[in-house]
Amino acid sequence: MAETLTLHEDPRSGNCYKIRLTAALLGLPLATRAYDIMQGETRTPAFLARVNANGRIPVLQIGDGAGARFLPESNAACWYLAHGSHLIPADRFGEADCLRWMFFEQYNHEPNVATLRFWLRFVGEANLSPEQRAQIMPKRAGGEAALRLIDEHLAAHAFFCGAGVTLADIALFAYTHVAGEGGFGLGDYPHVRAWIARVQALPGFVAMD
Amino acid sequence: MAETLTLHEDPRSGNCYKIRLTAALLGLPLATRAYDIMQGETRTPAFLARVNANGRIPVLQIGDGAGARFLPESNAACWYLAHGSHLIPADRFGEADCLRWMFFEQYNHEPNVATLRFWLRFVGEANLSPEQRAQIMPKRAGGEAALRLIDEHLAAHAFFCGAGVTLADIALFAYTHVAGEGGFGLGDYPHVRAWIARVQALPGFVAMD
Repeated sequence: MAETLTLHEDPRSGNCYKIRLTAALLGLPLATRAYDIMQGETRTPAFLARVNANGRIPVLQIGDGAGARFLPESNAACWYLAHGSHLIPADRFGEADCLRWMFFEQYNHEPNVATLRFWLRFVGEANLSPEQRAQIMPKRAGGEAALRLIDEHLAAHAFFCGAGVTLADIALFAYTHVAGEGGFGLGDYPHVRAWIARVQALPGFVAMD
Repeated sequence: MAETLTLHEDPRSGNCYKIRLTAALLGLPLATRAYDIMQGETRTPAFLARVNANGRIPVLQIGDGAGARFLPESNAACWYLAHGSHLIPADRFGEADCLRWMFFEQYNHEPNVATLRFWLRFVGEANLSPEQRAQIMPKRAGGEAALRLIDEHLAAHAFFCGAGVTLADIALFAYTHVAGEGGFGLGDYPHVRAWIARVQALPGFVAMD
């Protein structure tokens, strides 16, 4: 790959970690540039104008200088990196099924499991707004439902889309393996725990921190 | 395509409409089976066991009988249908950028714009729980931010990923064109309004109802 790859990230973010893990499993060199989202560093005029008008990380930068292109959304950035690799199923149904789990992750899993981790570990429960506090119980229930669903799926599958790791596993691993930091115990999800160990044993695996 | 395609849907759902619109623009025959989500018809044991353990529509069914395969998640179902067509950019960056907008839609747009439409038009404000009521203002702000962001992007682009329609447009059109039903006026978003007219003028376009 001729073009340099730079990840604009906050190292504490599981969404950013997905991209680092994808690059690591594929052996792709990836530069990083760190921002502190707690200090609003992704909401500056310069960031909004050049990197991401949505004010969020991660963003994958492809190339340098005036011709650089920017790709927000963690799962889209993983998709770019994994193009043509074994991390995306080669058949039509498998490719769509891999995306199915990645959309599930962003809609049903991340807003519950990752948000509670962010609130409880990084913001602190005492600092939450009343609107956020009212969301703790619904997000707890939504997160448990998502974990239960993936546990049932993993009871019959080594990885999400069959026998080998794909981006679906990477997307769901990022926040599942640190779900405890959001108060989600994995004791009731033995198949999730076994799958976490399988992902951690992959050649090239890198840990989050 | 040899295998029959059946959409398990609630016709009022914009997520289901995305799949019907994709099939229409591609000229693909698509059978439908309707469920009433207000009556819990996607939470029955039979539905959970066979169609989608997540208890949600849409689900795209590919094939019939014992060999049928099921694909939940609206954007993944669209991806399956559009495989190899002009609705998915052919280049590596374009394909990932198309997914970038589809993930944005599911994370930043749908949970705000579509949820308020569902609550206000179908559930009724008087029937909302206190937790839901506390979410109206944050979802209003989140939805306006999403609409503002796409308006700014469309100021410089005829469609989301360049000169022609892709799945990014279909994903974002579904709930944007009925945002008014959730109390979102499009008066401040002239580029969104012009883009809606461009989508509605596409050959093969079908309306939601």
